[in-house]
Amino acid sequence: MTATPAEHDAMRLALDVARRGPRGINPQVGAVILSPAGEILAEGWHRGAGTPHAEVDALSHLSPGDATGATAIVTLEPCNHTGRTGPCAEALIAAGVARVVYAIDDPNDVSSGGARRLRDAGVVVESGVLADDAHALLDSWLTVQRLGRPHVTVKWAQSLDGRAAAADGTSKWITGPAARADVHRRRAAADAIVVGTGTLLADDPALTARDVDGSLLAHQPMPVVLGERSVPEGAAVRQHPLPFVQYPGDIAAALDDLRRRGVHRVFVEGGPAVAASFVRAGFADEFLVYIAPALIGGDMLALRDVGVTTIGEARRLTVRGVETLGDDLLVVAAPATEGVS
Amino acid sequence: MTATPAEHDAMRLALDVARRGPRGINPQVGAVILSPAGEILAEGWHRGAGTPHAEVDALSHLSPGDATGATAIVTLEPCNHTGRTGPCAEALIAAGVARVVYAIDDPNDVSSGGARRLRDAGVVVESGVLADDAHALLDSWLTVQRLGRPHVTVKWAQSLDGRAAAADGTSKWITGPAARADVHRRRAAADAIVVGTGTLLADDPALTARDVDGSLLAHQPMPVVLGERSVPEGAAVRQHPLPFVQYPGDIAAALDDLRRRGVHRVFVEGGPAVAASFVRAGFADEFLVYIAPALIGGDMLALRDVGVTTIGEARRLTVRGVETLGDDLLVVAAPATEGVS
Ligand SMILES: NC(=O)c1ccc[n+]([C@@H]2O[C@H](COP(=O)([O-])OP(=O)(O)OC[C@H]3O[C@@H](n4cnc5c(N)ncnc54)[C@H](OP(=O)(O)O)[C@@H]3O)[C@@H](O)[C@H]2O)c1
Ligand SMILES: NC(=O)c1ccc[n+]([C@@H]2O[C@H](COP(=O)([O-])OP(=O)(O)OC[C@H]3O[C@@H](n4cnc5c(N)ncnc54)[C@H](OP(=O)(O)O)[C@@H]3O)[C@@H](O)[C@H]2O)c1
Repeated sequence: MTATPAEHDAMRLALDVARRGPRGINPQVGAVILSPAGEILAEGWHRGAGTPHAEVDALSHLSPGDATGATAIVTLEPCNHTGRTGPCAEALIAAGVARVVYAIDDPNDVSSGGARRLRDAGVVVESGVLADDAHALLDSWLTVQRLGRPHVTVKWAQSLDGRAAAADGTSKWITGPAARADVHRRRAAADAIVVGTGTLLADDPALTARDVDGSLLAHQPMPVVLGERSVPEGAAVRQHPLPFVQYPGDIAAALDDLRRRGVHRVFVEGGPAVAASFVRAGFADEFLVYIAPALIGGDMLALRDVGVTTIGEARRLTVRGVETLGDDLLVVAAPATEGVS
Repeated sequence: MTATPAEHDAMRLALDVARRGPRGINPQVGAVILSPAGEILAEGWHRGAGTPHAEVDALSHLSPGDATGATAIVTLEPCNHTGRTGPCAEALIAAGVARVVYAIDDPNDVSSGGARRLRDAGVVVESGVLADDAHALLDSWLTVQRLGRPHVTVKWAQSLDGRAAAADGTSKWITGPAARADVHRRRAAADAIVVGTGTLLADDPALTARDVDGSLLAHQPMPVVLGERSVPEGAAVRQHPLPFVQYPGDIAAALDDLRRRGVHRVFVEGGPAVAASFVRAGFADEFLVYIAPALIGGDMLALRDVGVTTIGEARRLTVRGVETLGDDLLVVAAPATEGVS
């Protein structure tokens, strides 16, 4: 038996209300309670860590007994662990829900098993309804669950021969306006933007995501500074709409803290030493290499030592695409998962 | 008045016979003599420096008086200078030719002016017939005339971050079989292939153009070694079907000598020091950068110092195309002719 049209409609509603919750350490989840006749009795969503889960939020709008024989439509498998809020599977069972339809399985070992628990209690459970939409909604959160850390994009701009600057350190602008606009659009899709103190002190970047006219885009990434040197009083990053965070230099620890702050996507903007550290540590999931059609030569490399001593250790990538941005090229790549030489 | 259908046909024949001559310091030229009634009286072509020009070759097949009132069809404007063979314009006038139809103008100041000389003598002159075909035939020779030196393609293979090798010097194979096959195809289109002694001593390259099965392609470029260190007795280049030429290191002098040897297209295969020298000297007309999707880091750069000290001096390029070759990318570029920053 599969889901009814009314249940499909309710799932679409549940996905909509899920979006009202914040992206963060917890997933965005929505729930709708349908009467046995298919009428909407309540809806609920998750408002972030420490607040009730969507199912519990929805049930809270009902009087005891209202949900007896009802169907709960949830965008994520109801949880089965006692966190700050108690297991949702138990709450649904206790409320007398007879049927649960959900979109995607809970990817976490610690909280999964809700479907089994419900079935054990005699509740009919269906899953996979509008799963693609739910996956799309939770894409970056699911990635964090899979990786155990935020997703990391490492971006740099270079000349065709891999230089980031000329011998005297000048680099404005290696790439053109179309490439820079692309960087800003992608910054706005990230939750945090990372630079090393080297770049901070050399370039005094604002670390904001800006439109071509210079105005701030709607979503701003949290600015993150890596390094022990202190951020100068007048640094542009202090004008960022979000307060910056600084970590001394342990990338794993920094990513872990960012994950705890609900960061899903980290955008590493360099410089060459920090970018190389992410590569060396194996923490780079995506590469954006903006290539200016120019030759510079010399020692100002866009990427420092990544710990490769012999050719067999080269970090092989898979090219996902090559785009033309004005005069520049953008190579989008990811670590190759197989066929490593 | 323009050319008749018979003259068009004769031009096509002249282009065909021109191809029998060798590519080299002199152009490949063909000539056909038509009677006043449009019948083919003779054909001729140029067999290389020091031998008769095509028009004179064609006339040599006729008895005195045979060409009176005839039409000469020539693929290149008849010359007007007394080289080793005497001016062709004079020979045509002396033979009594009444009309000359040619495809393209002589690009050289020293030998041009033949059309004017002919007209001054009362000969009717038409030009531009099958000019595109004649241009295509003489493409690389015309380029040499324009540049005053052979056309230079500089090729290298690099990782995405611009490295040619890992720290220990290993580099086989940065790029894959499709990229290597492409290099061999392009080697076969060149007249000479240049490497520095650094590469020669490090890699012992054969400098042949080979098919995927390892067999030699039909056309082989002449191997050229740049540098003062001597080529070892057992070097693979000594097995090349053509004897190698060595120059101490003055690129302009080397190109000049290659031009005198009839070389039109030079393919510079590196290494990093030699490639950089060609860039620095402004002698690189085309770049082929094979990019392997890998990160290597470290100091083994694919291109050394090109004399750029500040970003405004960066050698700006125009990207002609980006090709995918197996897992690798090929960026084809040329020096930007305007908009230099
Ligand atoms: N082409 C590009 O895309 C691009 C992008 C950004 C910057 N740049 C250029 O790069 C230059 C700065 O280069 P850089 O290499 O000095 O800058 P960087 O990579 O931004 O900063 C390096 C510094 O970050 C700190 N750090 C903390 N944790 C680190 C870690 N895990 N790995 C590496 N460093 C860590 C260290 O400083 P502490 O001593 O403070 O700990 C280190 O010296 C500037 O000229 C800038 O213009 C180019
Ligand atoms: N990735 C690639 O596409 C690629 C291609 C080729 C080579 N490589 C690698 O590059 C390494 C060799 O590098 P390299 O830089 O030593 O080799 P190189 O560029 O082949 O040779 C440099 C040498 O050539 C001579 N030379 C003569 N005229 C010169 C000029 N105008 N400019 C510069 N050099 C001139 C000099 O030697 P004398 O003292 O003898 O005069 C100089 O030391 C090898 O490991 C090889 O595998 C990589």
